Amino acid sequence: MRIDLHTHILPEHWPDWTQRSGYAGWIQIAHEKPGCAMMHQRNADGSTTRFRDVNCNCWDPATRLRDMDATGITAQVLSTVPVMFSYWAKAADAYDLARLLNDHAAGVCADHPGRFVALGTLPMQDITLACDELTRCVKELLMPGVQIGTNVNGLYPGDAALRPVFEHAQRLGACIFVHPWEMLGAERLQKYWGQWLVGMPAETCAALASLLFSGLIDLLPNLRWCFAHGGGSFPATIGRLDHGHQARPDLCAVDNCRSPRTYIADATGKPARFWVDSLVHDPAALRLLIEIIGATRIALGSDYPFPLGEQHPGRLILDAHNISQAERTAMLATSALEFLGPRAAAQLMLTLPHA
Amino acid sequence: MRIDLHTHILPEHWPDWTQRSGYAGWIQIAHEKPGCAMMHQRNADGSTTRFRDVNCNCWDPATRLRDMDATGITAQVLSTVPVMFSYWAKAADAYDLARLLNDHAAGVCADHPGRFVALGTLPMQDITLACDELTRCVKELLMPGVQIGTNVNGLYPGDAALRPVFEHAQRLGACIFVHPWEMLGAERLQKYWGQWLVGMPAETCAALASLLFSGLIDLLPNLRWCFAHGGGSFPATIGRLDHGHQARPDLCAVDNCRSPRTYIADATGKPARFWVDSLVHDPAALRLLIEIIGATRIALGSDYPFPLGEQHPGRLILDAHNISQAERTAMLATSALEFLGPRAAAQLMLTLPHA
Repeated sequence: MRIDLHTHILPEHWPDWTQRSGYAGWIQIAHEKPGCAMMHQRNADGSTTRFRDVNCNCWDPATRLRDMDATGITAQVLSTVPVMFSYWAKAADAYDLARLLNDHAAGVCADHPGRFVALGTLPMQDITLACDELTRCVKELLMPGVQIGTNVNGLYPGDAALRPVFEHAQRLGACIFVHPWEMLGAERLQKYWGQWLVGMPAETCAALASLLFSGLIDLLPNLRWCFAHGGGSFPATIGRLDHGHQARPDLCAVDNCRSPRTYIADATGKPARFWVDSLVHDPAALRLLIEIIGATRIALGSDYPFPLGEQHPGRLILDAHNISQAERTAMLATSALEFLGPRAAAQLMLTLPHA
Repeated sequence: MRIDLHTHILPEHWPDWTQRSGYAGWIQIAHEKPGCAMMHQRNADGSTTRFRDVNCNCWDPATRLRDMDATGITAQVLSTVPVMFSYWAKAADAYDLARLLNDHAAGVCADHPGRFVALGTLPMQDITLACDELTRCVKELLMPGVQIGTNVNGLYPGDAALRPVFEHAQRLGACIFVHPWEMLGAERLQKYWGQWLVGMPAETCAALASLLFSGLIDLLPNLRWCFAHGGGSFPATIGRLDHGHQARPDLCAVDNCRSPRTYIADATGKPARFWVDSLVHDPAALRLLIEIIGATRIALGSDYPFPLGEQHPGRLILDAHNISQAERTAMLATSALEFLGPRAAAQLMLTLPHA
């Protein structure tokens, strides 16, 4: 059994949101030839800015299922492409778009029972609408949780302004998958794909640090969080984060006096208080991840179908040396199922080995 | 023998640079009581912004020597506090300040033979003045090299605009120690000391990625580079950098088709093509560093005398398990001496074991 926690999906088509909302800035998809499309941003002057070329594996379940069968993936966890978050837009319009994306993802899951689970997207720029759509995702669309961006117009998860959404998620038993987007320092990282290669790991670390330093992690003790790309630069810099917390409590311990190290794996085998995916592209980095986070909190995540992802989902875990079968099983499937919660396991018609 | 490659020093006093230059923005030091001073920035309206409290260990060699003796440090490599780089200022004024700082650091070395070596600072905003001062640092002040910021007004080391300084450094046999400052994403990282804890590792990774992706590392094959804080987030994200280079050569391999992985340690024991210091505050992170960079390219660095540094310089290396005596010796001293070059070893009256 292998669950790929980190995959992205889009509808094949969606309406022109510039026309619908009356203003520009939205992402659209243009099909250029069979199986190939271009995501682009509509600009105010009517021009378009190319964002990313995508292929039919981004929208076509049959193609995805073929790829999953070829690489031994039992089920994919679907989430939208972060550029679709649209946190910049007027909330009502982003809410409309979120509903369309969530309906689409839920439909794919319903059409292929046992193969897909979906995480919703929320108009996080408006707490009320975000909570409404979160309720709908969980109660009507039967999703286990949502994917959010690392920041919402510059606010990281620990910011009090976002808290009602997370309180609502805990009440609903929904999980939160945090994905980097709108990377800090973008203006400095224009060359060499810097926003993706350097900015994303920093952005994810900033979001995770915010969760811990703000104390939100303890305020909502039953909320399940997962951070993409192995937590970004967090695992390698936990020493710095922790030492900083000790050295300058006047700056770091203002909202939470507990050290960040208390939330990661410890020598007794207690895993981290949050999940990460396995997408680190390096055996030594995966070993560090297992040591810092614990295998039971690391879930296979490939970033399918994008080129920066793991081309054979789970290969790094399968090839890892010096790990136990239990650790491998955890990373390939059970960590993801625990993060997603019992409903997802039921939807996938899977039973947790220890349940 | 233990060499601490990463320590900072300031003069006890320096003139009012706002008065001297005719404009504000400079860092000054105000002595508030014996042994305690406050670094502050002079603002245009005559007010001051507190930057950091410092103690006499920042400027007093006798205090430093006592601390070195107490923690078994043979020699410290001195460099200025990055906020003093002043790359934002008019070049002639920053040049003046660099000369003052360099004269001071060289004087401390001369007064205490065998205990201190200094890296200069350069007015990097002006290539001609930077090269002039670099020449003076090496030829007159007998410094082994210089410390630069990770970026110069947003330009990372691989930017062609900065290249003449690095070409000149190679000609002179000078080494380059790269220290994070003016962190990317600063506006997002205001809480919880975020610029220091999350921003600095990202900033260092961005500078190192720029060195590799630009190909500058191969254009100047004899120039010796060292990156602070264990290379920041680079070692943990080399997998992502390398996979990105393969996946999107159109974005990443535009200036250098060699993969970033070819510049780090490999299975044959060949170390990385650059140095890092050991300041990672975590045993697992140090193990990753040894695997990715190689012990012969890791040099004890403590960030003395600042609180985010290692309070007992070298403790992490001394306490490391499962490393050979050769690896420990390399990290405690010989890596630093190789980075600094033969002149520094001579100044310190030390002989490289293998020389």
